[in-house]
Amino acid sequence: MIRAAVVGATGIVGQQFLVALKNHPWIQVTALAASERSAGHSYRRAITDPSSGALRWFCDEPPVEEAMDMPVVNATELSTSDVDLVFTAIESAPAKSLEPKYAADVPVISTASAFRYENDVPILIPGVNAGHARLLDAQRKRRGWKGFITPIPNCTTCGLAITLKPLHESFGIDSVIMTSLQAMSGAGRSPGVIGLDILDNVIPFISGEEEKVQIETQKILGRMAGDSIQEAPIKVSCTCTRVAVLEGHTEAVFVSTRKPCDAASAIETMRAFTGGDDVSGLPSAPQHMILVNEDPFRPQPRLDRDNDGGMATTVGRIRQDSVLENGLKYVLVSHNTKMGAARGAVLVAEMLMRDGYIAH
Amino acid sequence: MIRAAVVGATGIVGQQFLVALKNHPWIQVTALAASERSAGHSYRRAITDPSSGALRWFCDEPPVEEAMDMPVVNATELSTSDVDLVFTAIESAPAKSLEPKYAADVPVISTASAFRYENDVPILIPGVNAGHARLLDAQRKRRGWKGFITPIPNCTTCGLAITLKPLHESFGIDSVIMTSLQAMSGAGRSPGVIGLDILDNVIPFISGEEEKVQIETQKILGRMAGDSIQEAPIKVSCTCTRVAVLEGHTEAVFVSTRKPCDAASAIETMRAFTGGDDVSGLPSAPQHMILVNEDPFRPQPRLDRDNDGGMATTVGRIRQDSVLENGLKYVLVSHNTKMGAARGAVLVAEMLMRDGYIAH
Amino acid sequence: MIRAAVVGATGIVGQQFLVALKNHPWIQVTALAASERSAGHSYRRAITDPSSGALRWFCDEPPVEEAMDMPVVNATELSTSDVDLVFTAIESAPAKSLEPKYAADVPVISTASAFRYENDVPILIPGVNAGHARLLDAQRKRRGWKGFITPIPNCTTCGLAITLKPLHESFGIDSVIMTSLQAMSGAGRSPGVIGLDILDNVIPFISGEEEKVQIETQKILGRMAGDSIQEAPIKVSCTCTRVAVLEGHTEAVFVSTRKPCDAASAIETMRAFTGGDDVSGLPSAPQHMILVNEDPFRPQPRLDRDNDGGMATTVGRIRQDSVLENGLKYVLVSHNTKMGAARGAVLVAEMLMRDGYIAH
Amino acid sequence: MIRAAVVGATGIVGQQFLVALKNHPWIQVTALAASERSAGHSYRRAITDPSSGALRWFCDEPPVEEAMDMPVVNATELSTSDVDLVFTAIESAPAKSLEPKYAADVPVISTASAFRYENDVPILIPGVNAGHARLLDAQRKRRGWKGFITPIPNCTTCGLAITLKPLHESFGIDSVIMTSLQAMSGAGRSPGVIGLDILDNVIPFISGEEEKVQIETQKILGRMAGDSIQEAPIKVSCTCTRVAVLEGHTEAVFVSTRKPCDAASAIETMRAFTGGDDVSGLPSAPQHMILVNEDPFRPQPRLDRDNDGGMATTVGRIRQDSVLENGLKYVLVSHNTKMGAARGAVLVAEMLMRDGYIAH
Repeated sequence: MIRAAVVGATGIVGQQFLVALKNHPWIQVTALAASERSAGHSYRRAITDPSSGALRWFCDEPPVEEAMDMPVVNATELSTSDVDLVFTAIESAPAKSLEPKYAADVPVISTASAFRYENDVPILIPGVNAGHARLLDAQRKRRGWKGFITPIPNCTTCGLAITLKPLHESFGIDSVIMTSLQAMSGAGRSPGVIGLDILDNVIPFISGEEEKVQIETQKILGRMAGDSIQEAPIKVSCTCTRVAVLEGHTEAVFVSTRKPCDAASAIETMRAFTGGDDVSGLPSAPQHMILVNEDPFRPQPRLDRDNDGGMATTVGRIRQDSVLENGLKYVLVSHNTKMGAARGAVLVAEMLMRDGYIAH
Repeated sequence: MIRAAVVGATGIVGQQFLVALKNHPWIQVTALAASERSAGHSYRRAITDPSSGALRWFCDEPPVEEAMDMPVVNATELSTSDVDLVFTAIESAPAKSLEPKYAADVPVISTASAFRYENDVPILIPGVNAGHARLLDAQRKRRGWKGFITPIPNCTTCGLAITLKPLHESFGIDSVIMTSLQAMSGAGRSPGVIGLDILDNVIPFISGEEEKVQIETQKILGRMAGDSIQEAPIKVSCTCTRVAVLEGHTEAVFVSTRKPCDAASAIETMRAFTGGDDVSGLPSAPQHMILVNEDPFRPQPRLDRDNDGGMATTVGRIRQDSVLENGLKYVLVSHNTKMGAARGAVLVAEMLMRDGYIAH
Repeated sequence: MIRAAVVGATGIVGQQFLVALKNHPWIQVTALAASERSAGHSYRRAITDPSSGALRWFCDEPPVEEAMDMPVVNATELSTSDVDLVFTAIESAPAKSLEPKYAADVPVISTASAFRYENDVPILIPGVNAGHARLLDAQRKRRGWKGFITPIPNCTTCGLAITLKPLHESFGIDSVIMTSLQAMSGAGRSPGVIGLDILDNVIPFISGEEEKVQIETQKILGRMAGDSIQEAPIKVSCTCTRVAVLEGHTEAVFVSTRKPCDAASAIETMRAFTGGDDVSGLPSAPQHMILVNEDPFRPQPRLDRDNDGGMATTVGRIRQDSVLENGLKYVLVSHNTKMGAARGAVLVAEMLMRDGYIAH
Repeated sequence: MIRAAVVGATGIVGQQFLVALKNHPWIQVTALAASERSAGHSYRRAITDPSSGALRWFCDEPPVEEAMDMPVVNATELSTSDVDLVFTAIESAPAKSLEPKYAADVPVISTASAFRYENDVPILIPGVNAGHARLLDAQRKRRGWKGFITPIPNCTTCGLAITLKPLHESFGIDSVIMTSLQAMSGAGRSPGVIGLDILDNVIPFISGEEEKVQIETQKILGRMAGDSIQEAPIKVSCTCTRVAVLEGHTEAVFVSTRKPCDAASAIETMRAFTGGDDVSGLPSAPQHMILVNEDPFRPQPRLDRDNDGGMATTVGRIRQDSVLENGLKYVLVSHNTKMGAARGAVLVAEMLMRDGYIAH
């Protein structure tokens, strides 16, 4: 068992880390950190609303009893000497200063975007780009750290990159046009999406989201060239919107492949994509990386987000597109706070443990 | 004043015709028709729920008192000798047989798709393709009718075609990729979208919708060549989805123009597009065919659907697209049951009256 | 193992029976019946949409594979000779004629209201009024049936009666005022609640619902007097509304008890209410008949409907009421399609098997 | 024309004051105040989001152009020498200190609860308790102010008190039990109700709300006894919940009257209640204080909140109640941010102007 700290443990993603790691066969949560306001309290008290006495627990799963009596420390004072691994579930601004501090000593797996765009930092999705983990050695050396920082992708990138991967391998992808219909949980709770803004409505803009998807997709689908990632020469353009859905991002994707690919081949290729050795045997791995559903009314976020425990990406409506060269179009649903957040980060940890990047 | 019949008067679109024609300066509703079940009753009784005594009135606007004591006749027995014009608000299957019967005697303006794809039938949007009305003469002659059938476009095509029009005129459009987030009202109430299916959800498929948008856009943006419409050589591909919105379709559009067009030029071009003489002076014409809103969080269906009485198409987020050649992308909101249905059909009637196609 | 038929198997409640009985230790589904339209097909085909090929499966749980190849028979032609028990998930009108036909031979457990208000028919909730099962012997004798009909209560009555039971036993209940905020699933899918009617809205009336709750509560809390149920002398008045919630009825309850009862005593009494021997050991029994949550913001339908697999009733906000004599008020959440429908009916079957009313 | 300041002008209620006072025949907005952060800017800049340049305008009505170039001053530094009247749209805590400061010089009409429960402060609803305005003279004298403070009621109290008033006058009210289904707008936007909390859900608690309704109802329906209000001896008990509705509070009310009152009499009495001389001729007065709708499916918040410009309270489902002595029950819908907030406060100002409490 390795010992992990969860930083940002009182927030919604932090709580999902506690759920994802409850009874985990390889990883044990031994430290919790949060902002100064929570520090010095037990976890139970840190998430208790003082006026009503109510527990501020935000996951569908029941509160993790094992965490309740653990002390919460100030994230700026977390001692890395007692842990083997740090998971961070914090905003990008504090991540900028905190994550390097932790990484000096131990591996850091991050849900924040702070370091995603640095040259020596991979954005890992097990089953898609496991080979990029080699970059961590270079990162360690260059930065003089004992640990490293490896962020997971933005939740909207995640399902897109997974579904593009088998197409890219088999047919080569030239370009991608995508419109997302994103769930509210992606915006968190501080305050996230206000009910008055989203009921009977669509919000057609999510600040910074489109740029993230465009850049991250190219990096994730790129290949290692020596000590660096050579970004995939894929043009990506998207429009990201918010809809009145609790969990599960829906994306309408239009793809141009280099080699011709009809709908049947695309279906077959996606179904055959298992993630292979990269994910097989990992405790959090989905049974299917991609589930293809041929019911024309699927995928739907409410019905498909929890497939394989929220770790599978579900694809439907795969058909020819008449505008792009070798055009395909499809719709995907991906669970933005399971595979796209805490559970996805735990899956990365598992892969890095198996492959020796995290000592245990 | 010309005398109009509304066929399908008890349904939601039929009721919207009554609202759109209340106090109309040129047109007076003098006959109401519906299915056999309603025939022989007063309109009030036809829309009264027998068990509860409640009025089944579905518009936001108050029930139209002027209609309440009018008799409802069976649509199959509507006498065209007492009216100058028929508006139909019925499904495509009954339209197939009923509309030609009416058109033998009088002009028919239809919200149904039954005749949209016939060669001698224009799909009119005042301000966009008024010239296509010339086809009505050919239609009359060829079919030996005193009247004609002219359908309005599908509600999802409507806003798309309006926003493409000025771009097409100034820069030429090569291709269009569009993802729609459509309101529930587009599906009507029989039963339309079931609450259990749409709450906390997105439905990624609307049967037949994508084909309609693709074909209709080419036809509407085509030009008259002799006695027929030459479809515009524009490739159109779309994915149509349903979201939990009451009214107002949102569309994320990606366009490739033939001549380069930057975002600023696109904004200027759309703002300059007034519909010109085609719509100026028509009672139902919007103040602006297109409203461009530069707030990045707009347009939103709840905030923008009612702009200019639901007759303006609102556009925002106009920016370059990096995938398509001379690529532009933007988001539009269009009121699917105002400009996209009854009020749009009334606007067509007004234009055809002014231009002499409908006698008065 | 006893053999059960599910009648109305293609509808939403019928599907929930299949889910509730999948891998059941005592009961095996051996026959499926539905309307004439489905008869003669396999279950899979009966629930497949012919135009899209999509499965019309409405439960959160995955489709029950075991049922897919079973034949569906016409409900009017179901042979009772091959089953030991019939579960009905049909509307009240067909239940009126079908259920007696089945009951002539075998026990019928019904989710319909058709027979609830007959003198010799109990409305059973295990843990609340198990003793009423004695009425089944009288029913059999009087009607000359080998079987019997025993309906479960209306879904809105169910949680109310469960929470009133311990208060009635300990303090006596004089009267109850209740306002419900009911989920859409209670209205089914034919078409049930239309999305256009419920989004951004409340519907303040559910036809017949208030009368059902008022009558059923008195019957369920009544006691056996010889061969009949003497209704509890409890005045009940309610207003039933529909809200935009998928599953889980919320009820705001105001109770007047005969003996004084403060909030702390009410909490203690509800917590102590286990249903006792009536439910202990039954496979579908909830761990807690009533869960009391002292967080003032609970219960909430989304967070609490699935407590104990949807079989527990969750209560919160228990406090004094200043209007009624010995007034208490509280809020409850009950899963209307689990404990309040198919799983509740299965729990009744289990109790009747254990107690010898259903032979096995 | 009298000159009015709006304090809290940048928030949602403040904006509604600007809408309610646009083109007002008697009152002109001449000063705007807000928190320190907004002070020193034009109103336009104060409500412009600096990062996106978007206007943060929250009303359905278009932004009030007349206000855009007005300066915003710090609420703590608002000079009362240039205005005749102050409307406050601020939280209760700052109201506690700011309102007395303003009231030393000029009348203050407040939407905050800070002073509602003081003995010399009336809670005015024109048409219901105009006579309570006499208390303002006593308040002025006792506090040595040139002005006064008069708050409007809590938005949930407002519709309840209006519907109880005619019943109380004609039959006397003994007690009231009420369950509210409140709209999100009542919670404001800071952050108000989070989308993740309310979609597919009900929140059964609104902090402090039930106490406010109970106390305010007794005060509003009380009568002047010399220089003070003698509270009406009406027992009130309620449960306040939040539902996924944008605007418009729904309340299920159970009333016990002192004299018998059947449903028909209650309907007649409510319909006959016009508010009389108190409201007749006031610019913001609704055409009907109470609209009774006998359709059993009404009132509904989405369909009825805007009746008479959001100033009428709509009542339906009036029927006997079997639990309370002389029991009646009904459902009401009241617009919480029109009659229940800014427009209601403007109506109070109009009445006080007409009756000479505010000089003009």
